[in-house]
Amino acid sequence: MAVYTDVSDAELSAFVDRYDIGRLQSAKGIAEGVENSNFLLQTDRAFFILTLYEKRVNEADLPFFIGLMEHLSARGITCPQPVHDREGNTLQRLAGRPAAMVTFLSGMSVNRPGVGHCAELGKALAQFHAAGADFELRRANALSLDGWRPLIEQSRERADSVSPGLASRIADDFARLEQAWPHDLPSGVIHADLFPNNVFFLGDRLSGLIDFYFACNDALAYDLAICLNAWCFETDGSFNITKGRAMIGAYEAVRPLTPAEVEALPVLARGAGLRFLLTRLVDWLNVPPGALVKPLDPLEYDRKLGFHRHAATAADYGRA
Amino acid sequence: MAVYTDVSDAELSAFVDRYDIGRLQSAKGIAEGVENSNFLLQTDRAFFILTLYEKRVNEADLPFFIGLMEHLSARGITCPQPVHDREGNTLQRLAGRPAAMVTFLSGMSVNRPGVGHCAELGKALAQFHAAGADFELRRANALSLDGWRPLIEQSRERADSVSPGLASRIADDFARLEQAWPHDLPSGVIHADLFPNNVFFLGDRLSGLIDFYFACNDALAYDLAICLNAWCFETDGSFNITKGRAMIGAYEAVRPLTPAEVEALPVLARGAGLRFLLTRLVDWLNVPPGALVKPLDPLEYDRKLGFHRHAATAADYGRA
Repeated sequence: MAVYTDVSDAELSAFVDRYDIGRLQSAKGIAEGVENSNFLLQTDRAFFILTLYEKRVNEADLPFFIGLMEHLSARGITCPQPVHDREGNTLQRLAGRPAAMVTFLSGMSVNRPGVGHCAELGKALAQFHAAGADFELRRANALSLDGWRPLIEQSRERADSVSPGLASRIADDFARLEQAWPHDLPSGVIHADLFPNNVFFLGDRLSGLIDFYFACNDALAYDLAICLNAWCFETDGSFNITKGRAMIGAYEAVRPLTPAEVEALPVLARGAGLRFLLTRLVDWLNVPPGALVKPLDPLEYDRKLGFHRHAATAADYGRA
Repeated sequence: MAVYTDVSDAELSAFVDRYDIGRLQSAKGIAEGVENSNFLLQTDRAFFILTLYEKRVNEADLPFFIGLMEHLSARGITCPQPVHDREGNTLQRLAGRPAAMVTFLSGMSVNRPGVGHCAELGKALAQFHAAGADFELRRANALSLDGWRPLIEQSRERADSVSPGLASRIADDFARLEQAWPHDLPSGVIHADLFPNNVFFLGDRLSGLIDFYFACNDALAYDLAICLNAWCFETDGSFNITKGRAMIGAYEAVRPLTPAEVEALPVLARGAGLRFLLTRLVDWLNVPPGALVKPLDPLEYDRKLGFHRHAATAADYGRA
């Protein structure tokens, strides 16, 4: 949540002139995401977001991310649309960094999603999966089962300093997931980070999806499992089955789950919970001294895993 | 350059509903200024800037700052215009902080002002001084002569670690200024921080002034002296007399300087140079470990003072 790279207004004006989008009239560094530098640009025609990709983004992945936004936009998914410069390029360099300009999307994120928001999200997720089906680039999910092991190793010794018994709960979760993880579910492009802060609403209607920088190829139902974790729990850690039912129902109205996906849902949901517990835990244990950004609480996901550990079937998540 | 206070979209939406400005459609934390938290808000009617005042702003000064912007807007100065809520208030509270909503101003700041920009600035500064003449609130300049002494004391011991001999150059400047500082020049509301980053242009035309949080009552010509420091030096520390001539000439086309102001100009320019040297030096010597924001170079002003120390008359600054 910061602007990491300073770019002068003169540099930004010259950069905008590479595009046929009008003259730059205003530029503001914005606090969007924690990974990259973002500027909100106003020209005499419209607003745009310019992203400068900082170190944590692998430059080799950018054609996937930018290509995906373009692919999805062309198929009617409301997401930031990469803008082509006068020579047709979407991926640029500015201030020594890879950069891309995308259209500005109106909308507000909800911090306490209601049942209606969960239904809107379920529908949009299924539409996203359908629209991504013919996207030709591929990117492996670095944060699936195999990616959790190094995170477990990095956090094992100090995990119990965050919560007594946490290291052994993580070890048990991982052992169970390693054994039960499904490997042949319908797969495709997933968003993999579709938390409420990455989804815009105008009034009660979903108006757009943003932040595709964890997108990858993986089981489609795993994306739904991530959303169940991110949207359907109450702040006290309890799972709201009405929200789960709304989300899964709206998803299946567009793309019905296969029997194998239905059966795998509790394992996928537990895996998604462990994935966010682990990345948050590693961040929590490695806050640099004097950091301005407070890391997200890993124990929120320890509590959610308390539910997943006892869920037996998809019905426990509200699947009819 | 950061957003210090996090406010959820739901809180922002509820806040916007206090005003008759449409429904909130987008909210972005922006990196504007280093003192406060700022959000760029889009409603279905227009864009606005919401400022939350952080600790470094004295709450008792807010009626002066907000009242001044309103006063100036009403007199045709293009600056952020405070928006009244449905009950007529401009000063609010949000997330435990004083807050105010102002109109959004298009424009780009220039980081290398040319002669034309200096002329535009001179004219706008004189118009600002004229428009402020009947503003009824008062605020003392905490960073005039008397305010420099504590800064000198805070930095004296370590000043030479930044540049050999700096402590004694500062002592000499201050001794000379204490003796020569004028106390009966025409005074009124001055901006006191009208650096290029606080001035917007659209093309070659000045389109607005922002950031009134150093504004105060002081000698009007001191404001011009600040602008000569901030706009008319080249990066090598040399004074560009063509820019000075353009700025002073455009200023005097609106508000001619009195003979006393003309005579005082070299002293005022030297004082303005010392003022920015001192605040930058204190910031430089007190960077918190791990700080993300790099402080501004104090020695830029030591070099500018090298010019002021040898300037004899206003003609040295380009005054005809």
